[in-house]
Amino acid sequence: MVDASNRTERMVASVDHVFSWLDNGSWSRHRFDPGIADFALGNPQELPLPGLVDALQRHAVPKDKDWFAYKFNEPGPRAVIADSLRRRTGISFEPGDIALTAGAFGGLGVTLRALCDVGDEVVFLSPPWFFYEMLIESAGATPVRVRLSPPDFDLDPDAIAAAITPRTRAVIVNSPNNPTGRIYREPELAALGRVLEQASARNGRPIILISDESYNRIVFDGIEFKSPARFYDATMTIYTYGKTTLAPGQRIGFAAMSPTFPDRRENEQRVTVHQIASGWGFPNALLQHAISDLEGLSIDIGALQARRDRMVPALREMGYDVTKPEGTFYIMARSPEPDDLAFAERLAEHGALVLPGTIVESPGWFRISLTASDEMVDRGLEAFRAVARVGAGD
Amino acid sequence: MVDASNRTERMVASVDHVFSWLDNGSWSRHRFDPGIADFALGNPQELPLPGLVDALQRHAVPKDKDWFAYKFNEPGPRAVIADSLRRRTGISFEPGDIALTAGAFGGLGVTLRALCDVGDEVVFLSPPWFFYEMLIESAGATPVRVRLSPPDFDLDPDAIAAAITPRTRAVIVNSPNNPTGRIYREPELAALGRVLEQASARNGRPIILISDESYNRIVFDGIEFKSPARFYDATMTIYTYGKTTLAPGQRIGFAAMSPTFPDRRENEQRVTVHQIASGWGFPNALLQHAISDLEGLSIDIGALQARRDRMVPALREMGYDVTKPEGTFYIMARSPEPDDLAFAERLAEHGALVLPGTIVESPGWFRISLTASDEMVDRGLEAFRAVARVGAGD
Repeated sequence: MVDASNRTERMVASVDHVFSWLDNGSWSRHRFDPGIADFALGNPQELPLPGLVDALQRHAVPKDKDWFAYKFNEPGPRAVIADSLRRRTGISFEPGDIALTAGAFGGLGVTLRALCDVGDEVVFLSPPWFFYEMLIESAGATPVRVRLSPPDFDLDPDAIAAAITPRTRAVIVNSPNNPTGRIYREPELAALGRVLEQASARNGRPIILISDESYNRIVFDGIEFKSPARFYDATMTIYTYGKTTLAPGQRIGFAAMSPTFPDRRENEQRVTVHQIASGWGFPNALLQHAISDLEGLSIDIGALQARRDRMVPALREMGYDVTKPEGTFYIMARSPEPDDLAFAERLAEHGALVLPGTIVESPGWFRISLTASDEMVDRGLEAFRAVARVGAGD
Repeated sequence: MVDASNRTERMVASVDHVFSWLDNGSWSRHRFDPGIADFALGNPQELPLPGLVDALQRHAVPKDKDWFAYKFNEPGPRAVIADSLRRRTGISFEPGDIALTAGAFGGLGVTLRALCDVGDEVVFLSPPWFFYEMLIESAGATPVRVRLSPPDFDLDPDAIAAAITPRTRAVIVNSPNNPTGRIYREPELAALGRVLEQASARNGRPIILISDESYNRIVFDGIEFKSPARFYDATMTIYTYGKTTLAPGQRIGFAAMSPTFPDRRENEQRVTVHQIASGWGFPNALLQHAISDLEGLSIDIGALQARRDRMVPALREMGYDVTKPEGTFYIMARSPEPDDLAFAERLAEHGALVLPGTIVESPGWFRISLTASDEMVDRGLEAFRAVARVGAGD
């Protein structure tokens, strides 16, 4: 029995640095500056996809009286998603395995709350996505951090193995990775699968692999994305359509239980009750009707890759120590001065916004989002150049 | 310290009777019968409002690059809602008091999870809405049931007072009431306010009044709805636009903290973190853009009232013991036979669907939804007549 009181205080504390920066940091103070080049967040910097607007308008026209009635995990979207997953992973997902959620956020939250109990431990990898710790706390579980080593930030099965205890209930893996841009490869994923199988056997209950694949369609250089679900049975795959549509304000995604997941029927029921408790957290009717269109929509991945291929060498030429992402929207780079918050501030004053690494547990680094427009890249590179010179000259 | 483990099992258990009936009861087996008259749930039985379709199509057209970006508690919708609340209640709500949620469901969930801690008690009134108990359990709190007496189902401040303990953290009141159709009046609400003030003083911490006002614009006979928030400081008002639009699949509503709410700043932060944890549970961008239109949209309340005024006397003439609702979509009636599930089944075989009272903790009763079409009322009354005769003849 573990004390679960002050759950909300721990949740608030876990995101305090994020919201302090969003509310008062360089981004909030400079985002509306004229001519600013905004590389801070994975938000759109250009008008939405016409195909998205068209799909929303088309599916707003009701075909029957139930068009906007209460929607659940509806059979149509579940079938479209199971079919897409089968094609992409080779795993025989069925419609009943798919829980429809308000983006990846909803999928992560319901998975953690449905499958973890108070006192369970959940391993996450650092640098992490902003909200893993908060969502683990929301389940009453205990976050356990495993640090990945720069500059490669490779998946580290041994470090994960060392963090597992008899109380470990889940491990969250995010590939392609935000913020590092890494896509984990077969040998590391296979090793992780073995670690989890052995630990599950030792613990006498399965450790769940939560595979956050929000960016699995944003990959560069023709690399084949391999789902971690292919290497471990008890996997819940999390996805959102908000990255390929670049419309995170229209929320639809899913949590898909592998067909090999233990106690599938009971766990499906547990997930459903948390979908309901999260505020009838099924995607809105309009988005469920539009699912086949959303499956086919995507921002221009080639344009993102071209932006990467322009920025990485240009920044390196200026003296920045920059990683080359394999996927996602993000480039990680070392801050030229140890205080990345101060660097981000200085850069903002020169006309470009980035996410200071401190916000994603990576002090001394910063993150660049490739969702900026090409014109922002033009102006942004000038700002990076000016600040690099200042740094070098100090 | 209270054991919070098995939270999910308690949540599942609390809705088991609801889902068993939804999955296998008279409704699921007969809802697609040709010519069925469906009075079972508050779902639409006619095509959506043209004004809703128009608003969705119009606001799907982006006006800027941020149109479908991450949406939060956005200033525009907050201002529209605060203004509407000020006009309707006379209470000086400010935009910052409004948390935008995915319907009333989201508002109830985030309020309970943000403001209750493990081991707190939350009082709810029975007959209740289907999911109060589950949402209280989702917060790790303990549901405490207070039964209201038929046939009036009046608010009972003394019974609530008797249920309050030093651990009571909140009381949920739903007016206009689903399923009873009652609107609570000033003397009872004032008495409830006094009970909560005294108990809060005794407990040394405020008891929160959660005022679920989902149906506060669905009132009949020109009755003035009085918000419970007018009679008690520490009130959170919950609302959804899904009733007046009759589009519960397009989810937007709010939780509004009274300006007199204690520790407003801290509690706002607690609510926000649970909005995020519920799956970035802010309403979708499109609905936030459409809020001014949604404020002005409504199904025809006069038509609902006319349906009530047709069904109540007709059912009474057949010998049914029927309440006359003051608001909401619902009529409560006594089952002619003690087993309301068996009655609902028999009625379904004659062509009409109702909600058995057992599903809302009211065995021996059933609920009729006025969202049925007029044509369903024609056919439905025949079914009620046939079954009443059979009952009388047995």
